[in-house]
Amino acid sequence: MSDSTSPQSPTARGLDRRALDYSASIAFDRRLYAHDIDASIAHARMLAKQGIVPGDDAEAIARGLEDIRAEIERDEFPFHQELEDIHLNIEARLKEKIGEAAGRLHTARSRNDQIATDMRLYVMEACDRAAAGVRDVQAALLTLAEANRDVIMPGYTHLQRAQPLLLAHHLLAYFQMLERDGERFGDCRRRADALPLGSGALSGVPYPIDRDFVARELGFSRLTENSVDAVADRDFVVEYQSAAAMTMMHLSRLAEEIVLWASDEFGFIGLPEEFSTGSSIMPQKRNPDVAELARGKTGRVYGNLMAILTTLKGLPLAYNRDLQEDKQPLFDTVDTLMGTLEVMAAMLPALRVDPLLPEAAARGSYVLATDVADYLVRKGVAFRDAHQAVAELVRYAQMEGKALPELSLEEYRRFSPAFEEDVLALDLRSAIEARDAPGGTSSRQVEAALKRARQRLEGKR
Amino acid sequence: MSDSTSPQSPTARGLDRRALDYSASIAFDRRLYAHDIDASIAHARMLAKQGIVPGDDAEAIARGLEDIRAEIERDEFPFHQELEDIHLNIEARLKEKIGEAAGRLHTARSRNDQIATDMRLYVMEACDRAAAGVRDVQAALLTLAEANRDVIMPGYTHLQRAQPLLLAHHLLAYFQMLERDGERFGDCRRRADALPLGSGALSGVPYPIDRDFVARELGFSRLTENSVDAVADRDFVVEYQSAAAMTMMHLSRLAEEIVLWASDEFGFIGLPEEFSTGSSIMPQKRNPDVAELARGKTGRVYGNLMAILTTLKGLPLAYNRDLQEDKQPLFDTVDTLMGTLEVMAAMLPALRVDPLLPEAAARGSYVLATDVADYLVRKGVAFRDAHQAVAELVRYAQMEGKALPELSLEEYRRFSPAFEEDVLALDLRSAIEARDAPGGTSSRQVEAALKRARQRLEGKR
Amino acid sequence: MSDSTSPQSPTARGLDRRALDYSASIAFDRRLYAHDIDASIAHARMLAKQGIVPGDDAEAIARGLEDIRAEIERDEFPFHQELEDIHLNIEARLKEKIGEAAGRLHTARSRNDQIATDMRLYVMEACDRAAAGVRDVQAALLTLAEANRDVIMPGYTHLQRAQPLLLAHHLLAYFQMLERDGERFGDCRRRADALPLGSGALSGVPYPIDRDFVARELGFSRLTENSVDAVADRDFVVEYQSAAAMTMMHLSRLAEEIVLWASDEFGFIGLPEEFSTGSSIMPQKRNPDVAELARGKTGRVYGNLMAILTTLKGLPLAYNRDLQEDKQPLFDTVDTLMGTLEVMAAMLPALRVDPLLPEAAARGSYVLATDVADYLVRKGVAFRDAHQAVAELVRYAQMEGKALPELSLEEYRRFSPAFEEDVLALDLRSAIEARDAPGGTSSRQVEAALKRARQRLEGKR
Amino acid sequence: MSDSTSPQSPTARGLDRRALDYSASIAFDRRLYAHDIDASIAHARMLAKQGIVPGDDAEAIARGLEDIRAEIERDEFPFHQELEDIHLNIEARLKEKIGEAAGRLHTARSRNDQIATDMRLYVMEACDRAAAGVRDVQAALLTLAEANRDVIMPGYTHLQRAQPLLLAHHLLAYFQMLERDGERFGDCRRRADALPLGSGALSGVPYPIDRDFVARELGFSRLTENSVDAVADRDFVVEYQSAAAMTMMHLSRLAEEIVLWASDEFGFIGLPEEFSTGSSIMPQKRNPDVAELARGKTGRVYGNLMAILTTLKGLPLAYNRDLQEDKQPLFDTVDTLMGTLEVMAAMLPALRVDPLLPEAAARGSYVLATDVADYLVRKGVAFRDAHQAVAELVRYAQMEGKALPELSLEEYRRFSPAFEEDVLALDLRSAIEARDAPGGTSSRQVEAALKRARQRLEGKR
Repeated sequence: MSDSTSPQSPTARGLDRRALDYSASIAFDRRLYAHDIDASIAHARMLAKQGIVPGDDAEAIARGLEDIRAEIERDEFPFHQELEDIHLNIEARLKEKIGEAAGRLHTARSRNDQIATDMRLYVMEACDRAAAGVRDVQAALLTLAEANRDVIMPGYTHLQRAQPLLLAHHLLAYFQMLERDGERFGDCRRRADALPLGSGALSGVPYPIDRDFVARELGFSRLTENSVDAVADRDFVVEYQSAAAMTMMHLSRLAEEIVLWASDEFGFIGLPEEFSTGSSIMPQKRNPDVAELARGKTGRVYGNLMAILTTLKGLPLAYNRDLQEDKQPLFDTVDTLMGTLEVMAAMLPALRVDPLLPEAAARGSYVLATDVADYLVRKGVAFRDAHQAVAELVRYAQMEGKALPELSLEEYRRFSPAFEEDVLALDLRSAIEARDAPGGTSSRQVEAALKRARQRLEGKR
Repeated sequence: MSDSTSPQSPTARGLDRRALDYSASIAFDRRLYAHDIDASIAHARMLAKQGIVPGDDAEAIARGLEDIRAEIERDEFPFHQELEDIHLNIEARLKEKIGEAAGRLHTARSRNDQIATDMRLYVMEACDRAAAGVRDVQAALLTLAEANRDVIMPGYTHLQRAQPLLLAHHLLAYFQMLERDGERFGDCRRRADALPLGSGALSGVPYPIDRDFVARELGFSRLTENSVDAVADRDFVVEYQSAAAMTMMHLSRLAEEIVLWASDEFGFIGLPEEFSTGSSIMPQKRNPDVAELARGKTGRVYGNLMAILTTLKGLPLAYNRDLQEDKQPLFDTVDTLMGTLEVMAAMLPALRVDPLLPEAAARGSYVLATDVADYLVRKGVAFRDAHQAVAELVRYAQMEGKALPELSLEEYRRFSPAFEEDVLALDLRSAIEARDAPGGTSSRQVEAALKRARQRLEGKR
Repeated sequence: MSDSTSPQSPTARGLDRRALDYSASIAFDRRLYAHDIDASIAHARMLAKQGIVPGDDAEAIARGLEDIRAEIERDEFPFHQELEDIHLNIEARLKEKIGEAAGRLHTARSRNDQIATDMRLYVMEACDRAAAGVRDVQAALLTLAEANRDVIMPGYTHLQRAQPLLLAHHLLAYFQMLERDGERFGDCRRRADALPLGSGALSGVPYPIDRDFVARELGFSRLTENSVDAVADRDFVVEYQSAAAMTMMHLSRLAEEIVLWASDEFGFIGLPEEFSTGSSIMPQKRNPDVAELARGKTGRVYGNLMAILTTLKGLPLAYNRDLQEDKQPLFDTVDTLMGTLEVMAAMLPALRVDPLLPEAAARGSYVLATDVADYLVRKGVAFRDAHQAVAELVRYAQMEGKALPELSLEEYRRFSPAFEEDVLALDLRSAIEARDAPGGTSSRQVEAALKRARQRLEGKR
Repeated sequence: MSDSTSPQSPTARGLDRRALDYSASIAFDRRLYAHDIDASIAHARMLAKQGIVPGDDAEAIARGLEDIRAEIERDEFPFHQELEDIHLNIEARLKEKIGEAAGRLHTARSRNDQIATDMRLYVMEACDRAAAGVRDVQAALLTLAEANRDVIMPGYTHLQRAQPLLLAHHLLAYFQMLERDGERFGDCRRRADALPLGSGALSGVPYPIDRDFVARELGFSRLTENSVDAVADRDFVVEYQSAAAMTMMHLSRLAEEIVLWASDEFGFIGLPEEFSTGSSIMPQKRNPDVAELARGKTGRVYGNLMAILTTLKGLPLAYNRDLQEDKQPLFDTVDTLMGTLEVMAAMLPALRVDPLLPEAAARGSYVLATDVADYLVRKGVAFRDAHQAVAELVRYAQMEGKALPELSLEEYRRFSPAFEEDVLALDLRSAIEARDAPGGTSSRQVEAALKRARQRLEGKR
């Protein structure tokens, strides 16, 4: 990107082939073609409306650009490396099509505000797509949770079994994470949504332009307020990268759990053939490749965030060619994020939750110990004594090789006289139902959460 | 952090000294003491209100905690490494003060939801402080801009002089960046603002608690909705780190410009003694250390963002001890960011803008070339021909060693007959004034922007 | 850091308190005191030897500096924030002790080459310490491997059981990783090992100094070759950070396995009380906090690498104050790395490998499937047909709920007539022993590897 | 990548189209084709030599693979997304060409050790290319330095003019940085240089293979020592990324200086048209795009380092599909680094150093102040008094608007009686020549350094 405004005189004239190859961006910025064309048409119409260029020329420009859009979409557009970038490629082609009038398009505009406009349009669309992709994964989680609403599993802390949970409650934790992700993409979009066109190379343009008109045509809800900032700013790229890094972090946690749950050791889920790879000679082996890749690709998205932050560090105002480096890491993050969201949304509902193992894992452990202590506290035993008693009780049970629900009342009473018949009613289900404050794992709370989640998703359509 | 709930029985009992040193967090998490105490008092009052603990005990707890707060603030609190963290240190001290009643504080709570609450309170406050610090730098920029509203400077692209600007316009570009930064801290605060207490170790608590009461007491505007998410979530830390990284990136750009402008080569500003270091033998040398450090510290804040993202990558739910690593990088970022904002806010108004050099730099260059071409276009010359003529004109002026305003009409006309008397009126000031669309550098736009900026700042107080 | 050479005239004179607080480094660079004193003594002796300062002054300087060293080590040194950094603090104190002669120490030296020297000495020592710490973890792994040389476990790919391994072989994989880590710290040390002193502020010094003498005194094996590079270079810091990031990555993988193995689901190891935290009410729960923290702290070390890389990006030569930001991330990485190595070296030998579960996990799976196919290939069955037969065989065994070694010859032969009596001899042990090429898991290879590892460790003492 | 060994039965059979698209790597790992074919041929020959497969089959395999290589190089190879990766694409094609014998190639091998081998071969070659590219930039710097050996410039600290330097000395600082970079690529290559083939899926292979033979065929100088490590290890990728990040950091510093020097304010260099872009209407404007892009692309290389570190964090042994994410960031770094080295090597010798401005910048400043103070010290003035006198002298000269060499002896003597006639001989040249210790900027030292540099480059050819 350079700050020239004339397509007829490529700024790269005379450039060494190595320098051209090093600096040309057409191989990747062609992705912006539709936004570039939209912005040019809006600009041309505004110029005509304001009497800056003749109306006929503006119409010729618009028609020519629509032709070009069609050529690109039919894959028939003659891209040239020599023309450096998408703007100059389109401009040169436009001149071939409509002649000198093409030159008028560049009145009151520079490549600096043009690329800023294209990038904002791209990021706004990318935010919408990300929000939709996030919502699809939320829907998939919800479907899986609803289909397994009675499944009990051990909740983990430190990867140690800690307290019983409804699987649906566990899955809804991810729903919450993604809910925040969706909000962040919304915030990013809101901040990206300001039209830079009209900022010229850096100081504005000496023409009586109507920026509001262009903004309306392109669907921006407001204008950038300072021309220097407008051409130097890539905050919206950083913010998208940050939101994507957070989302991938969440997905990497989910992916880790899928990998764990699909292991022989956990056995909580079976992976469908459509979403796992096998080994030709070990048919029992279903490798959780999709989850592993989602986890692994987190690195790449973090790296892309670091890339743009580093690129922007210490840059003086206004436009510097360094800014061209905003694109490839962004495109890579968009592709990686959307691919991951798509495949996770497809895979999650296809996971087969084992009907027995999660609950068996909870039952075969001491995840009720906290509840036994709380039982004693409710019976009036001092906090400390209650804990002491349960510690000894559990140690005893371990020695005997028994789970807590397998103990008799007499056994309980060896450790505290406060135990009564009703302690025998303590089981996974009662422990779960007891956690009935908002946000807890009781079925009442979880049913309400499922319903709320369903409503939220519907509200987003 | 572990998931025990009993302070009397430290979870670290029997821990190897090296493991204790490795895992104890009291050296840094003591910074959370006030939030920890606030949350405990609110929790105790709720327990009493709900009849879960006796009202007298709750009051004893509250009084004891206030005593402890005062001890810490007087620097008389006996911190113990053996007690691992701020929670256990306070708990143990509370028991010394009020005896067994202290134990009741831990009813219906675990260290997992407790630390999540403390951290959210901390981040909410940190967001408020960051927003205020950002506002102070905005005010400083505005003061500098207002004090130099007539200064003309060359605007740069590619660090090449490109078009003339008002310095105030240039400075307001940073005002815009910081405006977005302030918004992001607001968004971060809004998302952090949900009470996790009541989530227990991970599944909720089996007591009839009133989470809304606690939220109100602590100033949270809503509750976390899922207990598993509530103890596993550190999004608000990542989001703060992201917002801080962006802000530091902006400050690094400003710092870079201060370093450039303070160089002998630019000479746009003089650094006051209070904000630069000298050399005992080169009194003319004023090193822009503050700006250099601000630029350099950007690395550290980026690194802290990367740290928390890496720590969270691939962690299964719910609480894992890895989460303890959320703190030091966060505290370091808060200190670095606040220190940088404070010193920049202090330094900016003290910068002495040279009354002559910025405008001289603009005048001694060809930053009017674009305007001359636009002049010809307005006179009806085809875009392309206009550019061609000006290219030759500038080349001629360079050879002659003249700036454009030094050329005579006759010289102009050698390159195009369309030049008329009024071309001689083209100068830095007219070029600036011509850029009068919204966001442009004309004095009308800049005055309006200054006024808007002043109003915004006042609206934030 | 500034480029003055006079301690009597602090460069920070007149500095605003906020700027001073922002820029003073004495709170953290005091850690360099010993290296700073060593370098100053060597410098003073060289100055005397070359006749640049009187011998008596040099001796007074050396004695004064040794006094100061003792004061610092007795924690009696009066550090002053106003004196900014360790150099100026020591210089000012030296003047208090020996008077004007102290000033001569600064002949032919600047703070720029002085801090570069201190930092290189620090990094060289840090490399030695890291290499020793790495070796201690290797020794710990080796002890654990030797103590469990007969333990069989399932080897995993995709966290799915794949083929049987000796646990010792698995542990030696980490030995290899750490071997490379040790080498990298050696390479880093080798490159750091060049004396910058004598480079002055940036251009050298106009005195007849003897740099070789100073290098010998300080244990450097060569001189930096270019004065500008010498004061601007922090490659050795980046290289240490890179080596540390790699080492932490390795330790995070080991930590992840410890967490997995200590879970109820795997049950391969028991965590000793000295290296895990419990829960007061769930005595069976041993949280692998040390491993979790090691995994979590990886983020911080990655972040510190990113910090220094970012700080150095785009800095013009030679010294810039940004370089002061090399220190805190480095010190943090050194502390984190050394703490992690120390605690891992202590914990590993204390892990209790379960005598039954790892082998049972291998036996209860289909990890022999590859060997059965290889058996058929050796009997002359075409590769493809062999795989097909085994795939069907395993599917059959799964249906029957049998492990492969539980099948009868008749059952085998249903899937291929090539199966003969000797197929029944296929078991975990034979599968392990068959992998007897260099690097394989056969006991012969593993014993040789253990021996080689032991010898290497001894060679490093 | 999965751990199957059979190409005829793709592991991805039945995979959902989205999962296939998400996981297929053929779009980028085809870049490894030559290494994959080399390794397969060596493996086949070894199998024949050891009597594991018939010699005729091995020869058919080798011929078939050479055919395939030619097809790929002629761009006629039919790549299939369904075949996932480069291995399976080549395997399937081989079977089409030579029939069932193709299957034998997969004896005693898995995709896990195969991809590790390909990647090591790739990285070893990439290290050689990087070392050569680094050398080319060194040669370019040397050419530029030699061609401008008499040019004097101000050396900078804090971007303030500090002391005079020979430009050649300044340029040689970069030579030194790159010298270390070249070494690091050599170290990386040395550690990558170990053959993993023969490690099988993770535990070795149950065949009497000859790994040494394969190593010799492929040019490896040793074998990996542990099969689990061999398939799980990507250290060599991280190490390459680290070395590349450091190199790009160096190039970003050089790029920053080129941008500064090409500014109107510095004016030290002119950019040739071949390596800068212009503006059609501002012919005097030569934008340093190449340098800006080199600086900007640093972000991307840092990001790629962070990506692989993140991907590897916390991965349990041995192979996990996450490892597939080692490739794209690596390829991107290789392309970025090589492109940057190439274009810098081409551009540097083409820079036109201004014959006057650098020296004029030095002369018009107070860069001799340190020398004047040192002059007084040599005349016996106490260090402190000398500095005091010069401080006042410089302040006086500033007021008078004179550079130091413009002062008369009488003026000098107003500030110290120790000044004598010879102080008038102090000038830029004498200050430079006085810095004649090793590493200093004197012409004697610089000439020697230029010669040494030339010899080193020649030694590397």
